[in-house]
Amino acid sequence: MRTHPHGGGQENIMDNENSLLRLKTIEGHLKGIIRMVGEDAYCIDVIRQIQAVEAALKKVSGLILDNHLNSCVVTAVKGEDKEERQRVLNEILEIFETASEV
Amino acid sequence: MRTHPHGGGQENIMDNENSLLRLKTIEGHLKGIIRMVGEDAYCIDVIRQIQAVEAALKKVSGLILDNHLNSCVVTAVKGEDKEERQRVLNEILEIFETASEV
Amino acid sequence: MRTHPHGGGQENIMDNENSLLRLKTIEGHLKGIIRMVGEDAYCIDVIRQIQAVEAALKKVSGLILDNHLNSCVVTAVKGEDKEERQRVLNEILEIFETASEV
Amino acid sequence: MRTHPHGGGQENIMDNENSLLRLKTIEGHLKGIIRMVGEDAYCIDVIRQIQAVEAALKKVSGLILDNHLNSCVVTAVKGEDKEERQRVLNEILEIFETASEV
Repeated sequence: MRTHPHGGGQENIMDNENSLLRLKTIEGHLKGIIRMVGEDAYCIDVIRQIQAVEAALKKVSGLILDNHLNSCVVTAVKGEDKEERQRVLNEILEIFETASEV
Repeated sequence: MRTHPHGGGQENIMDNENSLLRLKTIEGHLKGIIRMVGEDAYCIDVIRQIQAVEAALKKVSGLILDNHLNSCVVTAVKGEDKEERQRVLNEILEIFETASEV
Repeated sequence: MRTHPHGGGQENIMDNENSLLRLKTIEGHLKGIIRMVGEDAYCIDVIRQIQAVEAALKKVSGLILDNHLNSCVVTAVKGEDKEERQRVLNEILEIFETASEV
Repeated sequence: MRTHPHGGGQENIMDNENSLLRLKTIEGHLKGIIRMVGEDAYCIDVIRQIQAVEAALKKVSGLILDNHLNSCVVTAVKGEDKEERQRVLNEILEIFETASEV
């Protein structure tokens, strides 16, 4: 697993905690949906809950991207390594394109 | 909780099992993401995994909608209750509009 | 070109007019974007305008789907032709799945 | 209108031409959809064409963002103006969040 190259100062740790907390809330939400399906809940209610989980996941992605832009991206762009810079910018483009699809 | 008004024949039960299985796989995937964030994994890798979970959730919604269209919607549209029919059709429109957003 | 099998009463004609009007407004919006790009406008401003056009297109799709559900879908589901019913329901599922992606 | 601060070298002009060409193709596509609605085409066919236009617009946004990341963003991040850098990074986040919705 690639770990996070950026500094990991206090602010960064707080952002990480915030993302973790949100993801755990989403996990609870998902467990609730699994229970609903197990109890044969009304289809549309299940779909609505799934869509709410998707919206919550997008919020987390936004948080993580914000953190990433202000740390790794700044470091890579300011750095001397052109390939690394290109790689980091291409990653942004790639997740933007996937965000447009999911 | 509204439970599912449609018949619940063998085919319907199989679809339900399929959705449940997929949701449990997604739960495992989400747990993996929580672990990644806890271990300070690289931001972009986390976002990619979150986007994969979103795509998997959309697949489940599609499955559930397919089932719903072929059971509840058919029943409601064939039925005599105009308000019920309207309600069921409006629900389809509503989840389509939310699907366009999330 | 397949034309529209549903009745085409007054309400339907009004909905059609509404969709046409919105699409023509979107065409004007798109022409404005083409002008912006021709004048080398700031990238992010162009992307924002493109995203606004996408949102407006989704609104039109919603309008057309609403109309479709309350006419063609009702006719097909109430009808005797099982294949036709299946076809119409599959179309709904298909555009839902595409809506989740675009 | 804000014009484009980046250099405008040969490569950039080519990218701009590419975006323009694609947008004009999309305009033609949209005109075709307007014609379809005017001729009362089948709803689902119209929705499919609208979804195709949305997908094409997303492609253009991706092209423009690619260009933007490799010009304006690099310039702003390497520059001394912290506010400008923040502004440029926030814009990326903002269009990512909108892309997740439309």
